[in-house]
Amino acid sequence: MEEIYSILMMVGTFVLAISGALTAMERKFDVFGVFIIAFVTSIGGGTLRDILIGKDVFWIFDPTYPYIIMGGSIFALVFNKCLEYLRSTLLVFDTVGLALFTILGAEIGLSYDLNMLSCVILATITGVVGGVLRDVLVNEVPVIFRKEIYATISIAGASLYLLLKLYNVGYYITELVPVLFIIILRFIVVRYKISLPGIYKKI
Amino acid sequence: MEEIYSILMMVGTFVLAISGALTAMERKFDVFGVFIIAFVTSIGGGTLRDILIGKDVFWIFDPTYPYIIMGGSIFALVFNKCLEYLRSTLLVFDTVGLALFTILGAEIGLSYDLNMLSCVILATITGVVGGVLRDVLVNEVPVIFRKEIYATISIAGASLYLLLKLYNVGYYITELVPVLFIIILRFIVVRYKISLPGIYKKI
Amino acid sequence: MEEIYSILMMVGTFVLAISGALTAMERKFDVFGVFIIAFVTSIGGGTLRDILIGKDVFWIFDPTYPYIIMGGSIFALVFNKCLEYLRSTLLVFDTVGLALFTILGAEIGLSYDLNMLSCVILATITGVVGGVLRDVLVNEVPVIFRKEIYATISIAGASLYLLLKLYNVGYYITELVPVLFIIILRFIVVRYKISLPGIYKKI
Repeated sequence: MEEIYSILMMVGTFVLAISGALTAMERKFDVFGVFIIAFVTSIGGGTLRDILIGKDVFWIFDPTYPYIIMGGSIFALVFNKCLEYLRSTLLVFDTVGLALFTILGAEIGLSYDLNMLSCVILATITGVVGGVLRDVLVNEVPVIFRKEIYATISIAGASLYLLLKLYNVGYYITELVPVLFIIILRFIVVRYKISLPGIYKKI
Repeated sequence: MEEIYSILMMVGTFVLAISGALTAMERKFDVFGVFIIAFVTSIGGGTLRDILIGKDVFWIFDPTYPYIIMGGSIFALVFNKCLEYLRSTLLVFDTVGLALFTILGAEIGLSYDLNMLSCVILATITGVVGGVLRDVLVNEVPVIFRKEIYATISIAGASLYLLLKLYNVGYYITELVPVLFIIILRFIVVRYKISLPGIYKKI
Repeated sequence: MEEIYSILMMVGTFVLAISGALTAMERKFDVFGVFIIAFVTSIGGGTLRDILIGKDVFWIFDPTYPYIIMGGSIFALVFNKCLEYLRSTLLVFDTVGLALFTILGAEIGLSYDLNMLSCVILATITGVVGGVLRDVLVNEVPVIFRKEIYATISIAGASLYLLLKLYNVGYYITELVPVLFIIILRFIVVRYKISLPGIYKKI
């Protein structure tokens, strides 16, 4: 159990570092700017989660994560040069990070005996806050509030995970299905440009 | 005492959720965007307060608040359709939330034996941070720094509360007068377009 | 040791309060807006540092810092009127604050037995977060991501400090040289308009 936490966390950290680095490169930030945006994008959600539940912040006493983020940033720098479709690459990494961190957040919520609603909120925070900070720092309206119903997918995935947990289906199904669910759902939404209805001002 | 805390907190949460939801609706966010902005607006100040004084974050282990926020968001959705003057409605809910959370912050500061200056700062943080986060997330210069001397009113209300507490006037006066003071002061300021002098650059 | 912490912290708080106040005055914020931006700029980095390592937030139980910030704000108001070159004044205070807080962050990291990489990160957070918050609040792309390789200098200074500590050179050299290194490096960078290479998108 502890082990799957660590693996989820490391892979999620790596892919979100790439997502952050690609965004920073698009804005022509310098190399340290790229590293800082990668750092904030990948540890932002988990850091807020740990502060909220009063847990030691996961990367402070363990240098593994900063090293993974450095690795992700360097990977993005190299990757960038071979690739022509930055936008869609960004989407892939961002989506995998969203899926892994959402489920990780829900797991940690359960392990702290939080109620279901708080688990969903914690899962969503873990999944989306890094991307929100990234967007606030580069001074955009966060992606979460634009299209692609980003947060909605995270909420749906976390709810599915808690449901599978509740009905006690097999271990691997509980861990894998919600992750795949989030990834596939996001690609469908982006591909077919689905969006939730806004509630327009009547005046 | 504990009881009045809870009531202040619940009513404040409800009205600030409405304020956040109305802002998000004005920007044509989708339904989950509306809920998230409502959530951040109403728990932002209290969350930062609890983190700063090292207290358990109030909504993590208690699902009451997230449910109240859902209620406020739904209320805003329905309310929105009957109303023509969104701007002034927003002002009412925002102001009541500012007043309730400011006094709540001052009370919690006192109960932690903080000095007067820290109590005022904690009160102001509790009162205004939710609104600041809301504005940062929708990518505006926060309302606090524009007109309507928002934070100034919060500081004045908190100081009045601490003064009444110091001179030990009756319980209900101490609780109610500063709340009304903040609400009335803000309406006067908005009505007569009062603003503090800026300090203009001489060059 | 404790003593030099306090002195670094107080001087750093004072100069960053001035830097924040000058920025707010340039934007024609009202007097409380000036104080709030001064407050956030000078305590932002240290507050995040203390929250991350689970330490009591330094200014909550000790009113010294809020008073120093008030002093810095008032100093900036007076200073402003005698000065014609606001931009370069802002640079001086911002740079001294960056230097002092960076070294302070590294020291506190060491005193918590953090590994070297986390010390550098903590030092950089302490040094730059106040300025980032200031810029986000006034709705700009943070200075850190524009030119003048702000964060890079902080990282270099923190690394130099840890190196000197490791090789156990004299106490005063360890404390003073990295501070001067950061200040001089920033002035050179600004004077000769040096910037790190961006990694441009190839598409």
